Amino acid sequence: MTGPVCANLGCDTGITGSRPAAPSTVPVATVGIVGGAGFTGALLAELLLRHPSVELTHMSSRQLAGESVRQHLPRVRTSLAFCHDAEVSDVDVAFVCAPHGQAAPVVKRLCDRGARVVDLSADFRLTAAEYAEWYGEHACPELLPGVYGLTELHREEIASATLVANPGCYPTAALLALAPLKRRGLLDVVVHATSGVSGAGKTPTGTTHFCSVDSDYVAYGLATHRHYPEIAAGLAPQNAPVVPFAADQSATAGPQLTFVPHLAPFQRGISETIYVRVGTLPPPTQQQLLDLYREFYDGERFVEIGHEPPKLRDVVGTNFCRIYPHLDARTGRIVVISVLDNLMKGASGQAVQNMNVMLGLPEHEGLI
Amino acid sequence: MTGPVCANLGCDTGITGSRPAAPSTVPVATVGIVGGAGFTGALLAELLLRHPSVELTHMSSRQLAGESVRQHLPRVRTSLAFCHDAEVSDVDVAFVCAPHGQAAPVVKRLCDRGARVVDLSADFRLTAAEYAEWYGEHACPELLPGVYGLTELHREEIASATLVANPGCYPTAALLALAPLKRRGLLDVVVHATSGVSGAGKTPTGTTHFCSVDSDYVAYGLATHRHYPEIAAGLAPQNAPVVPFAADQSATAGPQLTFVPHLAPFQRGISETIYVRVGTLPPPTQQQLLDLYREFYDGERFVEIGHEPPKLRDVVGTNFCRIYPHLDARTGRIVVISVLDNLMKGASGQAVQNMNVMLGLPEHEGLI
Amino acid sequence: MTGPVCANLGCDTGITGSRPAAPSTVPVATVGIVGGAGFTGALLAELLLRHPSVELTHMSSRQLAGESVRQHLPRVRTSLAFCHDAEVSDVDVAFVCAPHGQAAPVVKRLCDRGARVVDLSADFRLTAAEYAEWYGEHACPELLPGVYGLTELHREEIASATLVANPGCYPTAALLALAPLKRRGLLDVVVHATSGVSGAGKTPTGTTHFCSVDSDYVAYGLATHRHYPEIAAGLAPQNAPVVPFAADQSATAGPQLTFVPHLAPFQRGISETIYVRVGTLPPPTQQQLLDLYREFYDGERFVEIGHEPPKLRDVVGTNFCRIYPHLDARTGRIVVISVLDNLMKGASGQAVQNMNVMLGLPEHEGLI
Amino acid sequence: MTGPVCANLGCDTGITGSRPAAPSTVPVATVGIVGGAGFTGALLAELLLRHPSVELTHMSSRQLAGESVRQHLPRVRTSLAFCHDAEVSDVDVAFVCAPHGQAAPVVKRLCDRGARVVDLSADFRLTAAEYAEWYGEHACPELLPGVYGLTELHREEIASATLVANPGCYPTAALLALAPLKRRGLLDVVVHATSGVSGAGKTPTGTTHFCSVDSDYVAYGLATHRHYPEIAAGLAPQNAPVVPFAADQSATAGPQLTFVPHLAPFQRGISETIYVRVGTLPPPTQQQLLDLYREFYDGERFVEIGHEPPKLRDVVGTNFCRIYPHLDARTGRIVVISVLDNLMKGASGQAVQNMNVMLGLPEHEGLI
Repeated sequence: MTGPVCANLGCDTGITGSRPAAPSTVPVATVGIVGGAGFTGALLAELLLRHPSVELTHMSSRQLAGESVRQHLPRVRTSLAFCHDAEVSDVDVAFVCAPHGQAAPVVKRLCDRGARVVDLSADFRLTAAEYAEWYGEHACPELLPGVYGLTELHREEIASATLVANPGCYPTAALLALAPLKRRGLLDVVVHATSGVSGAGKTPTGTTHFCSVDSDYVAYGLATHRHYPEIAAGLAPQNAPVVPFAADQSATAGPQLTFVPHLAPFQRGISETIYVRVGTLPPPTQQQLLDLYREFYDGERFVEIGHEPPKLRDVVGTNFCRIYPHLDARTGRIVVISVLDNLMKGASGQAVQNMNVMLGLPEHEGLI
Repeated sequence: MTGPVCANLGCDTGITGSRPAAPSTVPVATVGIVGGAGFTGALLAELLLRHPSVELTHMSSRQLAGESVRQHLPRVRTSLAFCHDAEVSDVDVAFVCAPHGQAAPVVKRLCDRGARVVDLSADFRLTAAEYAEWYGEHACPELLPGVYGLTELHREEIASATLVANPGCYPTAALLALAPLKRRGLLDVVVHATSGVSGAGKTPTGTTHFCSVDSDYVAYGLATHRHYPEIAAGLAPQNAPVVPFAADQSATAGPQLTFVPHLAPFQRGISETIYVRVGTLPPPTQQQLLDLYREFYDGERFVEIGHEPPKLRDVVGTNFCRIYPHLDARTGRIVVISVLDNLMKGASGQAVQNMNVMLGLPEHEGLI
Repeated sequence: MTGPVCANLGCDTGITGSRPAAPSTVPVATVGIVGGAGFTGALLAELLLRHPSVELTHMSSRQLAGESVRQHLPRVRTSLAFCHDAEVSDVDVAFVCAPHGQAAPVVKRLCDRGARVVDLSADFRLTAAEYAEWYGEHACPELLPGVYGLTELHREEIASATLVANPGCYPTAALLALAPLKRRGLLDVVVHATSGVSGAGKTPTGTTHFCSVDSDYVAYGLATHRHYPEIAAGLAPQNAPVVPFAADQSATAGPQLTFVPHLAPFQRGISETIYVRVGTLPPPTQQQLLDLYREFYDGERFVEIGHEPPKLRDVVGTNFCRIYPHLDARTGRIVVISVLDNLMKGASGQAVQNMNVMLGLPEHEGLI
Repeated sequence: MTGPVCANLGCDTGITGSRPAAPSTVPVATVGIVGGAGFTGALLAELLLRHPSVELTHMSSRQLAGESVRQHLPRVRTSLAFCHDAEVSDVDVAFVCAPHGQAAPVVKRLCDRGARVVDLSADFRLTAAEYAEWYGEHACPELLPGVYGLTELHREEIASATLVANPGCYPTAALLALAPLKRRGLLDVVVHATSGVSGAGKTPTGTTHFCSVDSDYVAYGLATHRHYPEIAAGLAPQNAPVVPFAADQSATAGPQLTFVPHLAPFQRGISETIYVRVGTLPPPTQQQLLDLYREFYDGERFVEIGHEPPKLRDVVGTNFCRIYPHLDARTGRIVVISVLDNLMKGASGQAVQNMNVMLGLPEHEGLI
């Protein structure tokens, strides 16, 4: 961690200090939420109401405008009423929790009015070409690309960004897990991902019916999940050449990537078990592998490298991502397990983390 | 148990015999299901396909007519396709799994064509007056009332019935639990009921969303649940006068009944804890209470009296109801706990049990 | 709320303010935990590490003394190691999370050394006579009774207490739910309680095996649960005479109380549905009932009166208790539903709330 | 399917026939269970009590000898009492559900007395050398190897076997999923496996505590799970040479196999997502892949090839294994998903299936 944000974080890297940083006594910024009635919006509101340095002044919902927030979201203990989207204005930072496609014009309006925006949709994560292939034509291509808001990997750009594209939940877990291996040359990557049901959103469907999810475990979107291009883009070697996996693979395209998400019977959390072959031989030892990860994330508060497979219960409700890299000695394959709370580090928590970076606040302020 | 059915059951009352009764080698009846795509219809189909003495020839669905049953219901391993409701005809016994209100005209048509009907809706469980109060005007009042299909309590009428009103899941558990106490004079009854989510049906709603049910426990329908009049009717003293509970209660109306259903995070099963004050003093001892229940249900295959609080896992997937009566010595109150599988003894299993009685088959044939 | 604590809370009773109170910049007290490896101890540590005005200096465990806290409890992000029980000393406030019987001598030692103690065991909740009946002889009867730490009902005594007996989880939910009705004369009370599995503690047993709990719902301890006398004591009329329920009941003993706990398949949370008959006729209307509760708890941050049955998800992870009183118009019975997080308001959260009162801090500091 | 068993099954391969085969009216064999108090033993008893052609005469338990089976296992509705292990004798077929190591001498005694044995432990699945490496010295190496009881792949040997080694749950799902691809040359195989908690057995441990499993998903045994050698042995190419994956791999050893089991919050079921590279290029099309699987398992009752990812709810409580093969077109990798009920097809159900084959009964008799 370098740059101006680091100065603020300097005293917090030791783990003795879960104690909150001494906050400013007066809010330094006003914030608003567009689309506050869904899972991510409601959790954002909880976090922002407890945040010592910002004031939540607006929270919109297309369905519920005019109604009491607290009546619909009992955990959001506020006296605010939901407003209309267009009323979220004149805030220092706006969080946009609209569905993809709907988010882009909202973001544009907010940027035009001078707000800094953290967009939690997929609308600003991809290039125009990728977006067109996976989602269709983009409404505001002139704003592309947003700064990709994977905090640990793009902290400096985020600090000065006007528009931050908050990453998807699956990509956050995958890219944090694989970043330390990129310099080794990623050849072949299987991301086996398991998500809780909140990842599917609040709208009732056959898929989210309790009797469809409970006591089951099912793969979905094998060829079509829209987090695929986001992960692929994050793994692209850019400057570093990779050794091709097989003769019929072009040498420049990044690893052979397979991504299979699964739905599991819990509410919150993502667990990814990632099977990797790297290009540099011989494979590292288990100790070298652990050292590699620990060095890479040294000083990072929200990324923990464990010495055994992590559990969701260690991260759910927090902004932490826990990673365990394991060498499969029989095959030389590396197995990396990465867990996080899809609504926290995978969405609203990382959004607050990004806001903190944008405002020059301690990066963990208001976060657990 | 008396009458012709008993003869068939004679050798099965010993618990050594979970062995299936020797079935007829040729189906003795054809059966059909109206409304086969929901939870109760699908489970009925599973049961009927395994039943050695009947042949499932028709299975209708308004939404899915013309489509393969098995594609939509992988557990229903049949080559049938869904037909239209009106095509379910020329069967010896028809099961109607339509919603209340929609069921009545279907039942009438089937009766008119000479089928015997087991209706799993609420349409034939109440008197016309009660129905009007809780559901609205009845479409076919001339068919009221059906024979109330609580098998253990109405076996003889069921044997000769044309139209059996299969009981609701909550009333089945409550009425089996309280029947042995009725002769004591029920004064005051609180039915605290807990149901799995399948009781709410297959349609996705905010209530059945996994993230609404999981890790929670919530009361609903405190004043309005439509199983209230069905339970109240079953508890009415009829010929036996009861001692009034309080001065302001009319002496003839049956017990003071409170019924509060709750939704719990599991798929199948109902557990009722019933708090009762009876009129005859002094209260029985614990041993007298157990003896009372064991005698009352002596010889019944599907009602088990336990010596400790029963678990859902002892009955889910089966047609059994397990009951534990307990004397609360400090207060003289009786606490009766009753559990069953809401889709089996509470719906489809009891429907098959009733069909067996109607056809003169061994009562447990095709049931676990 | 009156007294010195109230002054601090004055500006926080409006619900706009989930914002943390401005904390002192320097810890005002040192705190320690005896028995930190169980569910309540670990959660206490999480809360105290985030608390802005205290410093957690000691955390003991008989099994794990000398080992890293964080290795065994990954959510407790501290650099502390577990110490021996006897090393928890020289702290301003000590929390004792030992099992009943083991707690008493630990508490005595701490009190002798001048610490103020919040004891989370059952050792100081009852009179010596009650304790002897339900638990056996008390090791330190000279310390009985502790101040009963149901914060909302005993705030002033807690503020000056040396030894606070933190209430049990079931009694907290029941007594908060029934306190507003006591002046009406409680005649007959059935507490139907449902708890998550964390209430059974961390030790693996046949009862807490996943395959025993999942998809089930089971009553236990019908006659023997040790929270019975704690609830009964809290409901005793003391000065207010009650109308006897029945001729064979002595008029002075408090209500006819039945308490039946049940275990449900979730980790955290207690839901109680309480069926009550009060002595004063006629029963209140629904609106009068709501008004009665709202007035009784006016100004209380952590007790919420809802207008519909509460859900566990509205309180789990927080220190809130939500209560919904309902008039069952058919019978005149009052049904009160009360939910809380058994590890928070039912244990560790209320312990921190009590500590805040004892130290003159804002009552909600460090709590959500 | 060929041979004498096929004749019996001739009329059952069409899916119209879930109807039970007409059973013999008299039991053709007596059967016993050694180790009947665990999950697999109890389920075996349920299945055998309902089986029309066998009579369960003995059920032993070291802990519970002399006590009523039904009292401890309420679902096993029998009047048998548990006997001692040594009393299971003079049965035609014995099922041994003892832990590995303990099973071998029990099996030997039974074989010496002339019983045919289905052993559900791991004691007879491996060669002596493999067993020594993973478990230690074998007590009865002279009996090695048993006939490997993966019914669909070894039916003829099972029919005449004296000792059948019933496969492990993970290997059953994996080997059925990969058998059709073996002739293509398996190069690289990742078995990502997810199991319900019943796979961990009935003994309470920290791992099986509800609060450890619920709402979580965790990898375990990454390098050490004892089902690894069983899967590896089943994938060994034997006669077919494979193309080596990489220069440093010896050409004869079978595929590069990584096996990572995970524990998920449900009771029953295994789901495996298997990532495969095969040696023959080019990869098949999706249609060719489906055709390959459908042809391979044509006529098999208990293996279903689906056209979308299967759900556990389609197989739990049944003896079916459902498999979905998918071509990942971007990489040429094949993804095979395989689900079954670990206690049924993964243990007790397959044991009954094997018994049926051994006795010349219809292979699905007594099974759903």
